[in-house]
Amino acid sequence: MEAGLVGIVKTQYYTFAHPPNEMTLESGRRLGPITLAYETYGRLNATKSNAILIFHALSGDAHVAGKHHKKDPKPGWWNNMVGSKKAFDTDKYYVICANIIGGCKGSTGPSSTNPRTGKPYGPRFPMVTIKDMIQTQRELLDHLGISQLLAVTGGSMAGMQALQWAVTYPDSVALCIPIATAVRQSPQNIAFHEVGRRAIMGDPNWRRGNYYGKKAPVDGLAVARMIGHITYLSDGTLRVKFGRRLQQSQKLSFSLKPEFQVESYIRYKGEAFTKRFDANSYLYISKAIDYFDISNGHGSLEAAFRASKSRFLVISFSSDWLYPPSESEELVNALRAANKEVAYYEFPSTYGHDAFLVEGEKMTRIISYYLAHAREKRLDDYQIETQPLS
Amino acid sequence: MEAGLVGIVKTQYYTFAHPPNEMTLESGRRLGPITLAYETYGRLNATKSNAILIFHALSGDAHVAGKHHKKDPKPGWWNNMVGSKKAFDTDKYYVICANIIGGCKGSTGPSSTNPRTGKPYGPRFPMVTIKDMIQTQRELLDHLGISQLLAVTGGSMAGMQALQWAVTYPDSVALCIPIATAVRQSPQNIAFHEVGRRAIMGDPNWRRGNYYGKKAPVDGLAVARMIGHITYLSDGTLRVKFGRRLQQSQKLSFSLKPEFQVESYIRYKGEAFTKRFDANSYLYISKAIDYFDISNGHGSLEAAFRASKSRFLVISFSSDWLYPPSESEELVNALRAANKEVAYYEFPSTYGHDAFLVEGEKMTRIISYYLAHAREKRLDDYQIETQPLS
Repeated sequence: MEAGLVGIVKTQYYTFAHPPNEMTLESGRRLGPITLAYETYGRLNATKSNAILIFHALSGDAHVAGKHHKKDPKPGWWNNMVGSKKAFDTDKYYVICANIIGGCKGSTGPSSTNPRTGKPYGPRFPMVTIKDMIQTQRELLDHLGISQLLAVTGGSMAGMQALQWAVTYPDSVALCIPIATAVRQSPQNIAFHEVGRRAIMGDPNWRRGNYYGKKAPVDGLAVARMIGHITYLSDGTLRVKFGRRLQQSQKLSFSLKPEFQVESYIRYKGEAFTKRFDANSYLYISKAIDYFDISNGHGSLEAAFRASKSRFLVISFSSDWLYPPSESEELVNALRAANKEVAYYEFPSTYGHDAFLVEGEKMTRIISYYLAHAREKRLDDYQIETQPLS
Repeated sequence: MEAGLVGIVKTQYYTFAHPPNEMTLESGRRLGPITLAYETYGRLNATKSNAILIFHALSGDAHVAGKHHKKDPKPGWWNNMVGSKKAFDTDKYYVICANIIGGCKGSTGPSSTNPRTGKPYGPRFPMVTIKDMIQTQRELLDHLGISQLLAVTGGSMAGMQALQWAVTYPDSVALCIPIATAVRQSPQNIAFHEVGRRAIMGDPNWRRGNYYGKKAPVDGLAVARMIGHITYLSDGTLRVKFGRRLQQSQKLSFSLKPEFQVESYIRYKGEAFTKRFDANSYLYISKAIDYFDISNGHGSLEAAFRASKSRFLVISFSSDWLYPPSESEELVNALRAANKEVAYYEFPSTYGHDAFLVEGEKMTRIISYYLAHAREKRLDDYQIETQPLS
């Protein structure tokens, strides 16, 4: 077996909120039953003090690490971070990851069967929020018998969930590690999401969300993903990876077909996505991200964090222009104003927002250190080349 | 009349390249007849030494300044820059602007009637390039009896045309003023364009470009424009203009409708555009921009500029992330390496790429100065708060 690979893992399912005990969502609407697909790695220790909850980003799933079967062509999405001797060391820690509600990777979402009608929910599925996502995962942890977490973490939308966890369950986690994220979704990012939604909802195959069993709005979804994909990369990555190189020949064909390699690449990424993701889930999850503002209901950012007993390790990447370092700095300033213990690392990286998936090596020593000392009374900042900004 | 307004202007038309004397395009294909729509402002002096050619950007037209009739609700697109006592002072200079070929604002483009078939060209229209655009405008100047220009200028794609003019007609212009542009289209910008094209061409109403007389691919075009519009603005502009303010009420509606003001704004911009622009023209012009690399056929950037006898005044804006200052610096470095006389101003601005349309006041003194002294033997850099970078 590959070194550090967690091995063969199996997705598990937990169903709760059975009617008439549905869960009340942030919108006020009720949803139930709710199924969460989840995976676990490593072993829960006797004192149940080594559990880490990892959240996933927009298009992710519960499959963080390892393979589903021997011939599985690729491991989970954060396999470089989760495993034996890795940042989230499965020799030491018990790692849990669940697919979000609203998703399409095993948890209840718009493509799930509505038990009242026997048909997919489609547009009748209630809007969900980051708070709703963590509320369902709190239910899962109760089911697993875990009340205290060593850490919560994730990048992008998953960083929002980590922050929301530390705010909503202020006594429940020793260390919160938000990566490449923000305290609220910026208007520019809302605008990018809205273009994607317009593309999906403008696709005649969307049929107001009732397309299940018919042709899906794949053209609209491909466009939405293409936009998203550009925002995940950096201009530098595209320059190195493709530059202005042509697709097939040395000469321009002067046609409307993709001629530059970067055109074919971005088209391919859009089209591949339509084979693995549900368009309605894309709409719902992008909305959940846009709604996110950790200060909602607290009056201020500082007030939102005041009750939290967590330590914070905040990580950003220099070339991330979707959730730029300046937004992590806003978070760090608010945490410090609320007298929280916080370490902040901005890593130099050319990978843009995707750095949180790619730059495992850069993050590993830092995260290992803070996890190892997460419950110590006094904790000094770990000194690396990239200094924590004081 | 409004101070500085050039008054009532009339669009004029010039048709040339009549078969069998069609124009040979960069692709090798031939096109003719070609009509250019153009407007002029001010008066050509006796020595014909005061002519300035202004180019327009992707969605622009020949109507730079003034109004078409007394009740015209708004003036031309660069009215803040062109008029009496303005940067391009029509009391002193004779200003010309023509709609590009490939466009849909009076010049020959895909929506024009193909004289061979009596129907719109549609997808049979040949691909055009920045070089083709200026070649047709050279024909227009010959028609107007103008061999030497005092200046060529424009922002964004129009800056590319200005650069191409100085390279292709090295003896023809005293001062080249490229604004908010680049020496070549970056892979990230190609990728953004490709998403827009994918949206248009994926719209079932596009019908492989043969939609004239039927419903146009307005959904696809709206999405393309929404993407473009985001790239023209800055995150800062959106934060100031909209922030996360809601559209109608104080509370979220938790629906798929636009809820944030920025969503409605970006949708409105996309939809309004479909009423004034042809989808095929969008495809063709975005391709022309993507093809642009001033070094094509010269071996290097420096070599491209070597023969030019023009002076250069290069302008960029700090918050422009579509054609960021770093790309103007690349241009400036190449010009200096080629021993050209060049002044460079990076203006602080929060308006993003749109600054070239908005920040008239910032540009006016600089441009006035360089125009007034464009033909002097020695010219010192104009000293303003924003120092030219040496």
